[in-house]
Amino acid sequence: MNYFIAFFSLLFVGITNGQTLKSPDNQLELIFELNQLGKPTYQLKYKNKSVIQPSNLGLVLKNNDNLVDGFEVINAKATSFSDKWKPVLGEEKEILDQHNQLIVELLQKATGRKMNLVFRLFNEGLAFRYEIPTQEKLNYFVIADEETQFSLTGDHKAFWIPGDYDSQEYSYNETKLSQIDVDKLDMNNGIGMKGPMAKSRIQSPVMMKSADGLYLNIFEAAVVNYPIMHLDVYTKSFQMQSHLVPNAIGDKAYLQAPANTPWRTIMVSDDARIILASKMVLNLNEPSKIEDTSWIKPMKYVGIWWEMHVGKATWDYAGSQNAQMAQEAELKPTGKHGATTENTKKYIDFAAKHGFDGVLVEGWNVGWEDWFGNWKENVFDFVTSYPDFNVEEVQKYAASKGVKMIMHHETSGSVSNYERRLDRAFSFMKKHNYDAVKSGYVGKIIPRGEWHDGQTMVNHFNYAVERAADYKIMVNSHESSRPTGYHRTYPNYIAAEAARGNEFNAWSVGNPPAHETILPFTRFLGGPMDYTPGIFEIKMSHYDATKKEQVHTTLAKQLALYVTIYSPLQMAADLPENYERHLDAFQFIKDVEVDWDKTEILEAEPGDYVSIARKAKGKESWFLGAITDENPRNTEIALDFLTPGKKYKATIYQDGKDAHWEKNPKAYSIKTIEVTAKSKLKLNLAAGGGTAISFFPM
Amino acid sequence: MNYFIAFFSLLFVGITNGQTLKSPDNQLELIFELNQLGKPTYQLKYKNKSVIQPSNLGLVLKNNDNLVDGFEVINAKATSFSDKWKPVLGEEKEILDQHNQLIVELLQKATGRKMNLVFRLFNEGLAFRYEIPTQEKLNYFVIADEETQFSLTGDHKAFWIPGDYDSQEYSYNETKLSQIDVDKLDMNNGIGMKGPMAKSRIQSPVMMKSADGLYLNIFEAAVVNYPIMHLDVYTKSFQMQSHLVPNAIGDKAYLQAPANTPWRTIMVSDDARIILASKMVLNLNEPSKIEDTSWIKPMKYVGIWWEMHVGKATWDYAGSQNAQMAQEAELKPTGKHGATTENTKKYIDFAAKHGFDGVLVEGWNVGWEDWFGNWKENVFDFVTSYPDFNVEEVQKYAASKGVKMIMHHETSGSVSNYERRLDRAFSFMKKHNYDAVKSGYVGKIIPRGEWHDGQTMVNHFNYAVERAADYKIMVNSHESSRPTGYHRTYPNYIAAEAARGNEFNAWSVGNPPAHETILPFTRFLGGPMDYTPGIFEIKMSHYDATKKEQVHTTLAKQLALYVTIYSPLQMAADLPENYERHLDAFQFIKDVEVDWDKTEILEAEPGDYVSIARKAKGKESWFLGAITDENPRNTEIALDFLTPGKKYKATIYQDGKDAHWEKNPKAYSIKTIEVTAKSKLKLNLAAGGGTAISFFPM
Repeated sequence: MNYFIAFFSLLFVGITNGQTLKSPDNQLELIFELNQLGKPTYQLKYKNKSVIQPSNLGLVLKNNDNLVDGFEVINAKATSFSDKWKPVLGEEKEILDQHNQLIVELLQKATGRKMNLVFRLFNEGLAFRYEIPTQEKLNYFVIADEETQFSLTGDHKAFWIPGDYDSQEYSYNETKLSQIDVDKLDMNNGIGMKGPMAKSRIQSPVMMKSADGLYLNIFEAAVVNYPIMHLDVYTKSFQMQSHLVPNAIGDKAYLQAPANTPWRTIMVSDDARIILASKMVLNLNEPSKIEDTSWIKPMKYVGIWWEMHVGKATWDYAGSQNAQMAQEAELKPTGKHGATTENTKKYIDFAAKHGFDGVLVEGWNVGWEDWFGNWKENVFDFVTSYPDFNVEEVQKYAASKGVKMIMHHETSGSVSNYERRLDRAFSFMKKHNYDAVKSGYVGKIIPRGEWHDGQTMVNHFNYAVERAADYKIMVNSHESSRPTGYHRTYPNYIAAEAARGNEFNAWSVGNPPAHETILPFTRFLGGPMDYTPGIFEIKMSHYDATKKEQVHTTLAKQLALYVTIYSPLQMAADLPENYERHLDAFQFIKDVEVDWDKTEILEAEPGDYVSIARKAKGKESWFLGAITDENPRNTEIALDFLTPGKKYKATIYQDGKDAHWEKNPKAYSIKTIEVTAKSKLKLNLAAGGGTAISFFPM
Repeated sequence: MNYFIAFFSLLFVGITNGQTLKSPDNQLELIFELNQLGKPTYQLKYKNKSVIQPSNLGLVLKNNDNLVDGFEVINAKATSFSDKWKPVLGEEKEILDQHNQLIVELLQKATGRKMNLVFRLFNEGLAFRYEIPTQEKLNYFVIADEETQFSLTGDHKAFWIPGDYDSQEYSYNETKLSQIDVDKLDMNNGIGMKGPMAKSRIQSPVMMKSADGLYLNIFEAAVVNYPIMHLDVYTKSFQMQSHLVPNAIGDKAYLQAPANTPWRTIMVSDDARIILASKMVLNLNEPSKIEDTSWIKPMKYVGIWWEMHVGKATWDYAGSQNAQMAQEAELKPTGKHGATTENTKKYIDFAAKHGFDGVLVEGWNVGWEDWFGNWKENVFDFVTSYPDFNVEEVQKYAASKGVKMIMHHETSGSVSNYERRLDRAFSFMKKHNYDAVKSGYVGKIIPRGEWHDGQTMVNHFNYAVERAADYKIMVNSHESSRPTGYHRTYPNYIAAEAARGNEFNAWSVGNPPAHETILPFTRFLGGPMDYTPGIFEIKMSHYDATKKEQVHTTLAKQLALYVTIYSPLQMAADLPENYERHLDAFQFIKDVEVDWDKTEILEAEPGDYVSIARKAKGKESWFLGAITDENPRNTEIALDFLTPGKKYKATIYQDGKDAHWEKNPKAYSIKTIEVTAKSKLKLNLAAGGGTAISFFPM
């Protein structure tokens, strides 16, 4: 790695309490100021125009102590930083971390307490955090509140979801800031377990667009030992303020100096593609703490999962019986159990035949009869399989076919039970040759009173990943707090759900066609998502004529999602028999890669469309995905990302002539042409449609 | 085992809602009645005299549901039970469980809910519990309150400690019920970590004596998956009501049908010895769930512990440094660290020389620099030793001397951290040949908001013991909730502290001379206590002339405690060098057994005196301990417990002529005489004194 570190200024500030810092490209300017009360404030300008007006910074400690005002600047130091690093898995082979940094050291004279504010300006945005250095007057402390303001300059358009402490599985709302109103949302949205909310509280990341075409995004990075930050929106003044998710007794965070908050990030650009291409969040996380990362592998997988969502099979073996402990209750099978040895072998066969790396099996273990909605502590033991799932037999069969099994750990939110059993569960996995786990946290959290987004749970999710690393296990967490780049530090945190995934289309109002064009501007900024694309049998009436639910995309768009969604873990979520009927389209899923050397954001507009091209890791092949919202879209893509002078065979998977996500979602056509870097391709995306293209060098 | 089960009645009750039950000896009578509101009530008579006047029974569920009134009796069934069972370790070789039982099946017509009340009458008292059977209308439920009343018949004298959710380490107060007032207590009592209390809330067990000489005790048995019951005292009406310790959000217990509460016990006798001899609490617990108990062994031990209490050594290695992780901070030793390899070897030598089974070492592991009072989650890892404690070397040395090491796990109340690491900690123990652990819970509980006596922690203490059993590890828990006989079910739960132990004498106002005469009527009813007797150097001025603290007994009483305190785990707590100066008296500690075939309660009066004789397990030797409170006491003991016709060499360790716990505590004399079952012995106990006697067959 190359380090280009240069001190460009070192300021000792006496009378003046103001500091400024510019981004490496000089487009962004941060202005730090202490006001007359000694309250720290900041503002942000982009191309000399204000994007964040003067906004307060401060921490409130428990017991009425505060780190809010009465400060003076005792030192300020600016540095410049540029470095490249290589992610274990990722969208790019190499990532540039280039930023200018300002550390403002503050002293609260009346108390003798010290606090540092650290600002980093990247070309695409500002990050800052609070640091409490080691000091005599502050050792252990409890954060009662964080008063970080984001004073926006106007009534921007925002893509937002409510500030639910327990779930992010909402569709995005697209409104003006002034129109944010959680109380007006239709909560009949399929989310089974909702947590506390408030009228004008939303989650971060929140994506915004100003009237004059600026793209703004407020988020956070490196949430470690701290709760998730939601945002209280002042709908008249267009201000937002940090709202930390509390613990069981209302405290926000327990810290010991030296300590720091996560980074608060504000991305700004007049080009939406810059937001999507940004690696700011990753750059703000610590480098990998895992030395040998050779065991961390990208994975494309199939699994016993969608058949439960469409009602063809069940997770549980024994209907509504309480079968927490197999040895205590005689299990009487209902006959619809999905996770049987026999069915698993079929999936293994399918995976082996089509070149998938892994097979996920949900519902393999005892507990599903009585798992949901009861705040029950001891539901699953993570090591006892149902009578019709033979772990050893499956292990042998999978090994004979060269397929890896993916373990499933549903915790039902009982983290106390999971942590107690984690070592046993991981040992069981390794014994049976599982190297990856999908974990689930559906349900009210135990320890009771805690929320999915509180410090306790943030620590749990991170702990589970850290402990998994000791066992060389990769983690894909569902219903966890949404990621903030911690997969840089623990690259075995291979993916997470933590947003509204594809399964909502199977049994609820579903995900509107715009959904997947917003996720890249929100959830994906924090890390890979296990969205589970690839549904070919779009309408649930296929399984049951009375059903009206459907996936809100065309089949071609399902293919394109493999490129527009970045994840080193991607599922081909539909049933093998559905793929067998469309092997031509399925070829794209077989071909597409999940780990990349290079990513080009070709087109992007939140809520409207996204087109991305990616170059396969260590290969010359490229893949392109273009998706649109409910509106059809015609566009022309220049293939100048391809290696000049090389010829490629491009296979284009596109919406059929009359395709429409609702009226005719399965119409698609496939054609193969020869292209070069000089070629341009006209794409015609249906309403709710998409195009997927593979480029193989000839 | 013999079962003598006979149905002596089977009643189907129509119109009448009253039931009665008598104890096997007919002395106790329970009267159950539903009042006009359909509220269940009970009363208790002893020898035809009321001891509990009509008292309500009921459970309040969360969300305003209740199981308090509106009931009718749908069935009632009385049975008689008699059985003998053998405890793995205990005061008796065989225990008789003889009781009559009444099950009253109730239906709450308006809701369709069912609840059973189960009453058991033993000769020495009543036990009852609530049972929620499997039913359609009640599956998962949350206990918001338990409204169990105990309506006493007068202003009894009571021995009580305040209803602190976090500590039972109080001296007992001896007052009339009407004078119970927690607010008036001197809280400068050495307890570092006190929890919530209320003016007239006390803990159970509470020992009482009526004006007409009846002994009454209210307690509970088999607290499993339920909080500890404290008692709200109505000081004018002499009523008590159950007060369950809440969890972080104010709920009491999360249950699923079929479920039951712990047993509520009321012991009654006109002979105080009957209370001490009772095995009711054990009989109300489930039989052992450990099949092979061969690895559960009684233990007499010494350890690196008292030297920290007297200020000669420290638990921590590096003073006030924060050394949570040895690898992160350079540890600079203060030079007073007790748990060194070298010091441990001295204790091993001492143990081997004098025939002790084990050596406890506290302060061996990293974390003590920064462990107390900060509600810190990650303090100890339970596997990292200080640089001057070589686990392997100690292991080898102990093995070479035939001595077992006892591990120490201080959790500082961070149960979440302990549970996460428990498997690693236990594996580490087994790897290094430790078969017993002393655990500690000094500090505010994490998960934050939980209390030592709440359901969460009860479950933790039980879980730790259950998981230890999987590793064949014996547990001695300190600062746990007080035991309620669960060591019958998990006999590896070899002892607990959970009361004010001997160490308070080293650095606080200490334990008054009456303390050890009250413990058998309170704390010991629930299970063995690791009281750590055997302090020979009574006055702390021995270590530091400015110190005024002292043990509030004579030396001879310290010896007698080995008999009056039942525990299969007993420490000789004083320093080896102190024993070396009194090897004659020390001989009793060397000789005394800790596991018994038979126990005879010879004399007992709470707050005044206790005299107990016990026959060694599998041997013909007997041991006798007699203790008194602050008053000197002369008594005569008939030795008719000895085997008739056998001659015994009796070695009598008694207070010296002018002995006095305060003025002359170390004066003792030893004499050896020949006795038989026909002999009588005059004992002269000094103020705060005692007598210990060993009887070896000649």
